[in-house]
Amino acid sequence: MALIVQKYGGTSVGTIERIKNVAAKVKSYVDQGHHMVVVLSAMAGVTNSLIELAHQISPDPDPRELDVLMATGEQQSVALFGMAARDLGMTARSLLGFQAAILTDRMFGRARINHIATERIRDLLTRGRVVVVAGFQGVDEDTGDVTTLGRGGSDTSAVALAGALNAEVCEIYTDVEGVFTTDPNVVPAARKLKQICYEEMLEMASLGAKVLDIRSVALAAKFGVKVHVRSTFTDREGTMVVPETHIDEKLMVSGVAYNKNEARIKVLGVPDQPGVAMKLFTPISQAGIVIDVIIQNTSADGATDLTFTVPKTDFDRAMGLIKEIAPQIGARDVKGDTNIAKVSIIGIGMRNHAGVATKMFTTLARENINIQMINTSEIKISCVIDEKYTELAVRALHDAFGLAEESAPAAEEVA
Amino acid sequence: MALIVQKYGGTSVGTIERIKNVAAKVKSYVDQGHHMVVVLSAMAGVTNSLIELAHQISPDPDPRELDVLMATGEQQSVALFGMAARDLGMTARSLLGFQAAILTDRMFGRARINHIATERIRDLLTRGRVVVVAGFQGVDEDTGDVTTLGRGGSDTSAVALAGALNAEVCEIYTDVEGVFTTDPNVVPAARKLKQICYEEMLEMASLGAKVLDIRSVALAAKFGVKVHVRSTFTDREGTMVVPETHIDEKLMVSGVAYNKNEARIKVLGVPDQPGVAMKLFTPISQAGIVIDVIIQNTSADGATDLTFTVPKTDFDRAMGLIKEIAPQIGARDVKGDTNIAKVSIIGIGMRNHAGVATKMFTTLARENINIQMINTSEIKISCVIDEKYTELAVRALHDAFGLAEESAPAAEEVA
Repeated sequence: MALIVQKYGGTSVGTIERIKNVAAKVKSYVDQGHHMVVVLSAMAGVTNSLIELAHQISPDPDPRELDVLMATGEQQSVALFGMAARDLGMTARSLLGFQAAILTDRMFGRARINHIATERIRDLLTRGRVVVVAGFQGVDEDTGDVTTLGRGGSDTSAVALAGALNAEVCEIYTDVEGVFTTDPNVVPAARKLKQICYEEMLEMASLGAKVLDIRSVALAAKFGVKVHVRSTFTDREGTMVVPETHIDEKLMVSGVAYNKNEARIKVLGVPDQPGVAMKLFTPISQAGIVIDVIIQNTSADGATDLTFTVPKTDFDRAMGLIKEIAPQIGARDVKGDTNIAKVSIIGIGMRNHAGVATKMFTTLARENINIQMINTSEIKISCVIDEKYTELAVRALHDAFGLAEESAPAAEEVA
Repeated sequence: MALIVQKYGGTSVGTIERIKNVAAKVKSYVDQGHHMVVVLSAMAGVTNSLIELAHQISPDPDPRELDVLMATGEQQSVALFGMAARDLGMTARSLLGFQAAILTDRMFGRARINHIATERIRDLLTRGRVVVVAGFQGVDEDTGDVTTLGRGGSDTSAVALAGALNAEVCEIYTDVEGVFTTDPNVVPAARKLKQICYEEMLEMASLGAKVLDIRSVALAAKFGVKVHVRSTFTDREGTMVVPETHIDEKLMVSGVAYNKNEARIKVLGVPDQPGVAMKLFTPISQAGIVIDVIIQNTSADGATDLTFTVPKTDFDRAMGLIKEIAPQIGARDVKGDTNIAKVSIIGIGMRNHAGVATKMFTTLARENINIQMINTSEIKISCVIDEKYTELAVRALHDAFGLAEESAPAAEEVA
């Protein structure tokens, strides 16, 4: 008998039938004697319809009121689930953000959870209730205003609840079977990982693998919450996201990720003197644009080239800003390219193994893929390449690191 | 400069365009320097869709969860209104039941307001905010569970807020221009009343005129709230619902109401002895069925006939119960009739005037309409008739009491 937090995403509760199926699934846990906290997203499509409604009324909807509107999606899910649960003989209690006491800051649309006051949930659990919490929403700690946590916020709700309640496990039910070595749409031989550690998952998530929201992974790491990513539609085990110390076999490379949502900006002939980078990047960050990779070429003639990437959606704004600043700092030219992709390999096993980068570069070279930029961290190596080679690069890397094999070679064997 | 509570019904906020129009209407009041509290219903159709959704998931939806679901309708309206308000330069704040501190009992689906803690609303008003309250909803005072006030509940929300805030007036905006002397669909010459007192409005509401929810009228009477029923779609004055003392001209008959939603049950040959009525009606009231009119014929042979009316929707259940009890108390037979209607005349002026009933009976007789049952109170007379004569009766009575005339004759003149 354990305390289990389960989160079901929008597809899992996308129809009346599916909500009933999820209720039946939860019942099988209740029947085994577990204490259950169920976190639900809005039914698939509802969130987008609400956003559309908001934009019909205003080109720039008031953020506070947008959260009030958005929160209704999850509210409807938990109410419907509560009804289905009762029909199956469970005594469920739905809780909205203010009732579950999910206390956040006041950043509407992307609020952060400050604290969860768990008294009410604990009390309901002791009284044998299935607690059904509306994901994605909270309330401003000071005013009680409704807030939402942003896209993927229900994952965060679930992990935060699991942490606050010290749950045995946080199960994230979704429409895929777990975390794969790479996108199975690109590499059909991609293999489901049994385990992955928080750090690897963070890199995977931030590099574009969309299984689990990145903030929820950071939160899980912070509180040591074991996260089980699995499919609503099968009973098969998924992928356990756990502390590094729990990993049985540390793979040198656990996965290959890619991201086509960035664009590159190149500032040519920048005078090689102190303060230039600051003048260039301060306006960009002040505009709220996140810069990912930056590289600076060594210069020969007292001038250098600065290249960096920004999200594709911010490309036009960033180009506008840079084109204004470039002449002021004496740069020669500015060039932009939106046809790029970032391909990355991730693995905690690579921490102490120098051969990994070389193998990656060799693999790409063998396919005649030119590397435009390189960025590395302790557990990942990213290369920016021409977008059209993305799938080719992913397949080649997946193959080169033997990720399709039943048990990929451990770090020791490869190094 | 006054504190004004305005309530807009589902039709008034039925589309994005209409919500914008309502926001513009509110702005014209703000521009005049008034403090504004706006209470909104769910957009037309939304409440019914939610009920349908609930019934798709369960034949008998959990009442607690049904309220959680239903409350999302008004939540969406206030959020959308808040966005529209900001675009017009107003600083609006939407408040849900728990935020507006509308504290109720725990009767899900038909909760009663116990108390409204107005501190937050007053604070927002002093800071120049337009306060936008989700109608129809509150929270259980003890647990904070979401409750709803039942159909027409937004009227109740508005009047209760106006009472608690001591507002100058509570304006109920709807899709009709006010309270009419009778249903204009039946009598095109029906006239809009300038004033009506609470007692008359109560009788009108409970007899089937659907302009204003009956509980909101009772509440208005209790707190002396002046209610202005008017149309969202014109600027014309509507009808003021006020204390009797404010009525300038006390009409003997202010209106003719009708109700086709009742059915009649007749128990024949009931032994004329003490306790029989109790045995008959106790099970009915225990089943939650509300009996309206009861009549008992004088008996000749030690047996009597008991006739009463129940809501049409409860007719089958009531018949079942009565058919079980009737043999036990020695009654001879039970007969039911669903083809009946109740036609009523209402007016505070009739209190001291005996001629009114006679005039009503004469009018119906002249049209060859048989009166099956009669029920009277101080300010109304109701006759149960064959349903098919409803419109005929309403027209004849409206005409006989001169209600179409620009200024109907006052009680003094007729008596």
